[in-house]
Amino acid sequence: MEQVKLGIIGVGNMGTQHAKYLQEGVIDGAVLTAILDKNENRTKELNSVLNQDVQVFNDEEAFFESGLVDAVIVATPHYDHSYFAIKAFEQNLHVLCEKPAGVYTKQVREMNEAAKKSGNVFSMMYNQRTNPLYEKVRELIREGELGEIRRMNWLITNWYRSQSYYDSGGWRATWAGEGGGVLINQCPHQLDLWQWMTGMMPTRMRAFCHFGKYRDIEVEDDVTAYAEYDNGATAVFITTTGETPGTNRLQINGDRGKVVVEDGKLNYWRLRVSESQFNREYTGGFGEPECWKVDIPITGKETSHTGITQNFVDAILKGTPLIAPGEEGIKGLSLSNAMQLSAWTDDWVKFPLDEEMYYKYLKEKIANSTVKKEASSITLDVKGTY
Amino acid sequence: MEQVKLGIIGVGNMGTQHAKYLQEGVIDGAVLTAILDKNENRTKELNSVLNQDVQVFNDEEAFFESGLVDAVIVATPHYDHSYFAIKAFEQNLHVLCEKPAGVYTKQVREMNEAAKKSGNVFSMMYNQRTNPLYEKVRELIREGELGEIRRMNWLITNWYRSQSYYDSGGWRATWAGEGGGVLINQCPHQLDLWQWMTGMMPTRMRAFCHFGKYRDIEVEDDVTAYAEYDNGATAVFITTTGETPGTNRLQINGDRGKVVVEDGKLNYWRLRVSESQFNREYTGGFGEPECWKVDIPITGKETSHTGITQNFVDAILKGTPLIAPGEEGIKGLSLSNAMQLSAWTDDWVKFPLDEEMYYKYLKEKIANSTVKKEASSITLDVKGTY
Repeated sequence: MEQVKLGIIGVGNMGTQHAKYLQEGVIDGAVLTAILDKNENRTKELNSVLNQDVQVFNDEEAFFESGLVDAVIVATPHYDHSYFAIKAFEQNLHVLCEKPAGVYTKQVREMNEAAKKSGNVFSMMYNQRTNPLYEKVRELIREGELGEIRRMNWLITNWYRSQSYYDSGGWRATWAGEGGGVLINQCPHQLDLWQWMTGMMPTRMRAFCHFGKYRDIEVEDDVTAYAEYDNGATAVFITTTGETPGTNRLQINGDRGKVVVEDGKLNYWRLRVSESQFNREYTGGFGEPECWKVDIPITGKETSHTGITQNFVDAILKGTPLIAPGEEGIKGLSLSNAMQLSAWTDDWVKFPLDEEMYYKYLKEKIANSTVKKEASSITLDVKGTY
Repeated sequence: MEQVKLGIIGVGNMGTQHAKYLQEGVIDGAVLTAILDKNENRTKELNSVLNQDVQVFNDEEAFFESGLVDAVIVATPHYDHSYFAIKAFEQNLHVLCEKPAGVYTKQVREMNEAAKKSGNVFSMMYNQRTNPLYEKVRELIREGELGEIRRMNWLITNWYRSQSYYDSGGWRATWAGEGGGVLINQCPHQLDLWQWMTGMMPTRMRAFCHFGKYRDIEVEDDVTAYAEYDNGATAVFITTTGETPGTNRLQINGDRGKVVVEDGKLNYWRLRVSESQFNREYTGGFGEPECWKVDIPITGKETSHTGITQNFVDAILKGTPLIAPGEEGIKGLSLSNAMQLSAWTDDWVKFPLDEEMYYKYLKEKIANSTVKKEASSITLDVKGTY
């Protein structure tokens, strides 16, 4: 294969962005050949802006039988991510899936199994993994510079959404339409980065989710979660869509120092000897190990969505290792599902998550949802918001 | 009365500091006349450095019957704060009590009742209330600049203590000797400021305390607490003595903006219209109210311990309003007790706190404590640590 023929499934906000940069030829080795969206009004509009050789489908069977694509980007509403990914793997296609991996882990596990069975390339659109700040934090942790992790604190509240935002689509922020709120819509990147940077998943979690607290919506719009890890580390993750001005501040403490990412900057404090060594050797009253404030060069550029798509295409053509292997999507989703489940049961949730239990609760929420799943009627300009 | 004759009860670390500045004549209208400490070795040592007209007692009855004092500063081990305060009120003395107000609220309630009955001046040594940064935060909240409070986040982990610190006194960090760990020893100021600045106490709390996690001690050395308020606000309070470099970062979000106190600086962001008004009026998709980063002049000086002692003396001589009325000590202690109780019961704790239940648990801890209450044998230099 010299060029990957790419199809996009779902051309709402994000699918349209993907179509744009692919048409502009930004991705080496890829060509946009087909689009699938069940919404005829939307595909009609698209027809006028797409290259003539991009074929537009409203019927999924026709799309998959067309032989026009080697790989697909799945950018449908959340519930359909796994469905279309599985369908694509069964057609021997490669898959790049938008975040979140799905709405519940049971569904995503099936997607992962289909991917494995197919042996095809499977990537998640975790474009934040290309952010040099978080790459550097991951490096500091993996290479032992920070020492064993003891505490994490992520205050990620810069997701302000007004009531008018939610009112722009009847499916928004409903259990039937989206399957969750700030955790499933706004936070998948942070939930992924959290486990990706550290390589750690909690042993148990206790979360406090408030549903429709700030807005007239069904789902969670305010979350405080507390997590414990098997090495004794603890973490707090706080998010909301109801707050402005927002904050995005990540702090991680380890046995050898502390790192803070905020306002696009990485701040790093490094102990000259580790805390555990100091404590073993120190004989005085008050005293702490010497601490250096270190300036670390942050090199590289955040390649974002196009970086992930290029990496996906390179993986197909040249076997390049994936930045965001698709199978890892279940990890961040487990964190998200666990937070909701802890709030619903008002109790601890242990990992690995009881996926059947989560799904049982979710189905109840869907059954009682006031709004039924529907396609978006308004396409918002999402630049700078995803 | 032209001059207040002051006695100090307990001359360990803090009591010695109070004696020093009183002898130096730093406090207008006050003279140090007597000292009570049961430890004869310690009072012998003190005799050589005290003015000749300061009388030193080892016997509490003799001290109280001496007629040498109008007022006392209680700086004994925690468990004895209430005992000596009550005794002093019964002798018609005024009382300035070191933090914490006591170990359990049942005890402190009795102290408050004795104070009220006596009608005398009663103050807590909450010297952090004289910090202009926290005074300014309080002003911003009380005068409505910040709007209704929605979220608070205090990361106060700059209390590093090595094992050798704890080993410097056998009573340290034991249930029998101190009645708690980082919450009762290091955090009383923050727990007081938290409710003092905001004027709010939670409706319920869920806390995760780890006991002897980092050190060979009986009591809590790592705490993450989550609180909910009746206006819907939430808060997280995180503290430990096992972490270095530490952090002291307070963030409060309100309907009109956000304030952050960190590294001795106050940062303030103010919305041009409140979030709630913006949300009512806005009709677009993504959008937020205009936000101004504002530099606020911070005037005044942190007068600290001497400021509180001067205020106490002025209250006695001139009726000056107290900066830290003694009756308020129970509030911060309630927060501290609630955090431990939540961890012990692995459950929510509702406010007002069930003080009998807390006391029942505490008595069990004391009964099982490996170390018995004893006086300190080593006096550490506490400069800059309290």
